[in-house]
Amino acid sequence: MTNTSNAKVGDSAITTSANTGKNSRNKRSVERKLAELKRRLLEISDLGAAGAVLSWDQATYMPKNGAGARARQNATLSKLVHEKSVDPALGKLLDELEPHASSLPGDSDEASLIRVARRDFEKANKVPIDYVARAREFGSVSYDAWTRARPANDFTSMRPFLEKAVDLGREYAEFFAPYKHVADPLIDDADEGMTTASMGALFAELRKELVPIVSAISNQPAIDDHCLRGTFSEPSQLDFGLSVVKQFGYDLERGRLDKTLHPFCTKSSAGDVRITTRVDESRIGEALFSTLHEAGHALYEQGVSSKFEGTPLGTGASAGVHESQSRLWENIVGRGRAFWQHFYPVLQHIFPDQLHGVTLETFYRAINKVERSLIRTDADEVTYNLHIMMRFDLELGLLEGHLQVKDLPEAWHERMQADFGLVPTDDRDGCLQDVHWYMGAIGGGFQSYTIGNILSAQFYAAAIKARPGIPSETATGEFCTLHDWLRTHVYQYGRKFKPTELVERATGGEMNLGPYLCYLRAKYGEFYRLPNV
Amino acid sequence: MTNTSNAKVGDSAITTSANTGKNSRNKRSVERKLAELKRRLLEISDLGAAGAVLSWDQATYMPKNGAGARARQNATLSKLVHEKSVDPALGKLLDELEPHASSLPGDSDEASLIRVARRDFEKANKVPIDYVARAREFGSVSYDAWTRARPANDFTSMRPFLEKAVDLGREYAEFFAPYKHVADPLIDDADEGMTTASMGALFAELRKELVPIVSAISNQPAIDDHCLRGTFSEPSQLDFGLSVVKQFGYDLERGRLDKTLHPFCTKSSAGDVRITTRVDESRIGEALFSTLHEAGHALYEQGVSSKFEGTPLGTGASAGVHESQSRLWENIVGRGRAFWQHFYPVLQHIFPDQLHGVTLETFYRAINKVERSLIRTDADEVTYNLHIMMRFDLELGLLEGHLQVKDLPEAWHERMQADFGLVPTDDRDGCLQDVHWYMGAIGGGFQSYTIGNILSAQFYAAAIKARPGIPSETATGEFCTLHDWLRTHVYQYGRKFKPTELVERATGGEMNLGPYLCYLRAKYGEFYRLPNV
Repeated sequence: MTNTSNAKVGDSAITTSANTGKNSRNKRSVERKLAELKRRLLEISDLGAAGAVLSWDQATYMPKNGAGARARQNATLSKLVHEKSVDPALGKLLDELEPHASSLPGDSDEASLIRVARRDFEKANKVPIDYVARAREFGSVSYDAWTRARPANDFTSMRPFLEKAVDLGREYAEFFAPYKHVADPLIDDADEGMTTASMGALFAELRKELVPIVSAISNQPAIDDHCLRGTFSEPSQLDFGLSVVKQFGYDLERGRLDKTLHPFCTKSSAGDVRITTRVDESRIGEALFSTLHEAGHALYEQGVSSKFEGTPLGTGASAGVHESQSRLWENIVGRGRAFWQHFYPVLQHIFPDQLHGVTLETFYRAINKVERSLIRTDADEVTYNLHIMMRFDLELGLLEGHLQVKDLPEAWHERMQADFGLVPTDDRDGCLQDVHWYMGAIGGGFQSYTIGNILSAQFYAAAIKARPGIPSETATGEFCTLHDWLRTHVYQYGRKFKPTELVERATGGEMNLGPYLCYLRAKYGEFYRLPNV
Repeated sequence: MTNTSNAKVGDSAITTSANTGKNSRNKRSVERKLAELKRRLLEISDLGAAGAVLSWDQATYMPKNGAGARARQNATLSKLVHEKSVDPALGKLLDELEPHASSLPGDSDEASLIRVARRDFEKANKVPIDYVARAREFGSVSYDAWTRARPANDFTSMRPFLEKAVDLGREYAEFFAPYKHVADPLIDDADEGMTTASMGALFAELRKELVPIVSAISNQPAIDDHCLRGTFSEPSQLDFGLSVVKQFGYDLERGRLDKTLHPFCTKSSAGDVRITTRVDESRIGEALFSTLHEAGHALYEQGVSSKFEGTPLGTGASAGVHESQSRLWENIVGRGRAFWQHFYPVLQHIFPDQLHGVTLETFYRAINKVERSLIRTDADEVTYNLHIMMRFDLELGLLEGHLQVKDLPEAWHERMQADFGLVPTDDRDGCLQDVHWYMGAIGGGFQSYTIGNILSAQFYAAAIKARPGIPSETATGEFCTLHDWLRTHVYQYGRKFKPTELVERATGGEMNLGPYLCYLRAKYGEFYRLPNV
């Protein structure tokens, strides 16, 4: 109601005026509270951003001996973030804003902000502050130890860290008791709405489809991928990767690429979303695909609407949805034939001697070679999910307590034998290979990759359906239409919608295996004989 | 008193036991309070360290569009540091620890910690928190604007920033009213114990000596320094600088060197003290000497005793004492003949074509050429302090209000004309050249350089007196003895002693111009005719 509508006389006018006064006082009060809510959330976001910069620094440029103090500094920041996240004054504000939120359409920005802020507040309130500081400091120290232990193949030195990580995972779960499964609270943190049971069912369904495919492919002659080996200079590899992701739409005025041990993407603001990669000069592929992968995450974060900056809505919807974007750009786009129709000549120009006489088709097959292998991050699209399932199951074993950390290397070997017919010769390529278990509490860290694979195909299928020109655009090295569709239907919303709702809105249906299996069968059926469905 | 001394019987034993009980309760209470004090100070230090990393990042690798949010993040951290620095519980702890501090020798670590923590607490308590956040955010935004305005020679766009910086300087001073001079509180922040009046007297005394020297030199033929011009590749310049500072004793496991616009040294922990430099490929010198300069700061910070880590004692004694170390390593060592006896052949080896036929003596004179010039950071040792005096005076004019920001370019020109007989053709090389006025409140930022020059010679003279072998060691490219003396007599103490006390202890006397003038006369008397004293 505006003041101009207030032109009556007599009692009714007085009443209206009084109501208007009351309404506008209410409105002002709500506005004040919303502003105060946003101020508090911004402070939390700023401290989180500072932590992100400190972690990026630790993983890129920090001198070796900075690790001890950095662990403590990160812990101090986490503790403060937590203190501010559980401040009763924040809870009171959220309570007071509840009637306002209820009066709004459920999909309005403000209602979503209040809903998500409440979810975060309630979750944070279950976790004691001392746990947060301990877990963060431990994560930093453990990561630092892992960076030395993995190259040294030294699982023994990591055992106490991993035992502690299991304890921390269990301790965390207890804060959310009662639960159906000890891993549920950890999974829900990463992928809202998913549980150990629902993931188990999804994995079982996927496994039933994948195992015969992998098995059929393994009985066929291996694809020759020796063209990917040679000497590929680091700067050229980095430059090529950067030129590709720039073409994807990654904005370098709001980002940068650096080298690290275990690639990641990090955001400290909408204007600062960085990616990292690692380079092996003896192989073309690792640096490139990890750059494309992280750029997928970065495109998502750079695409979140700036109106959500500094609020809990200003980031991706969940770990799984995030992973769908890294996998979409890395695999569906970056390992696709259309992509290489444009970029292979460019790559040949950069590495003329190394790729001399190697045809596009040879190269395309090489980068898509399906092979039972030891290292998850190097795995092809078909076997990748088997790596995830294995880690997910071992993690459950550790959390449930029927697998002891001391027995992990052996359990790893057994499962590798069973699923891949392979056994790593050392722990470096075995249970030391993933950073996830060595950076804090374990649990809930792996299912997102498979959710991501599934959703990547589902989002891509929806995009193609809406904009059929995408593949031919890709073949000319242009990605505007795809990027634009993803920004419009996924990225811009940040955490505004629950993952399930976001998927529904963008693809018109629930998460389902259909598009992913279709994609795998179509792509790999071109150069492998696959079992009939 | 220990329990084993408590073996008597009867009343006296009971009394003793009761006293012992009371004493040990007191002791435990003091220990608890000290632990709580250190915990609080550590948290403040950690947040300060996070701010240091964010600032380093902003000045080195941050993407362009990160600036806005980074300003806000820095402000949030500063605000928190301030909140925690003025926490009444901290004041109460300090009060309660006062009797304990009084019972200790004044030069004990604990007494010093309590004294310095109290000084910081009392100072911080005078400054309102909103000022801190405003000033920090403004500083970040202003710095960002300056990085664009200086290359564009755009003083007009910086005018409102500078006006605000003057206002902030005055506003800050008011928190410490009454004062003798508006700049006093700002100077005292950087150089405890110094005032506008004492600096004015020091500058006047120095000026009386320097002006005739500069004037005599200006009437002599200019030294030919064209050997410093050419093409000197960036990586080679950086490598050479790094190899020298490593030789000085700068520990690269606790530090690193990066490029930036305005070189600085920053510490986030004893294990992480970084330096930055800038490179001009058309000149040999700028990158090297700025690297040596920042390494001097870094040697100081790396040398502070690790027992002070995370407390207010864990950093240099004052800005002036800090500057003494950057100037000592940059100038007294790095522009000295002994240094180049060892390093000139190395430099010739790196740049054989560029330095072909250039003798050591020619090179040595070129890097020490005295010349009235426009840019402070490029100025020689003799004219350098005239640059400082000019900035100090203009700053006083701005703070006092008899100089308006709009008139600054003209005032700059007039003073340059008077002191140097030169006028810059643009503001880029005029009043836009120094970052100091464009990174927050102005005032108190320049006197430290001259204090540093004076003290550098005074510390060096004391070191030579104690260890006469230093110059001949320098001539072999070794610096252990000098580094060791400085670490023992200056660095290790951090902020434990007041600057005046530290100087007294290390050199046996008060700060005085004697050694500095001696040094200048001896060095420059070798290749210029100087006026008689």
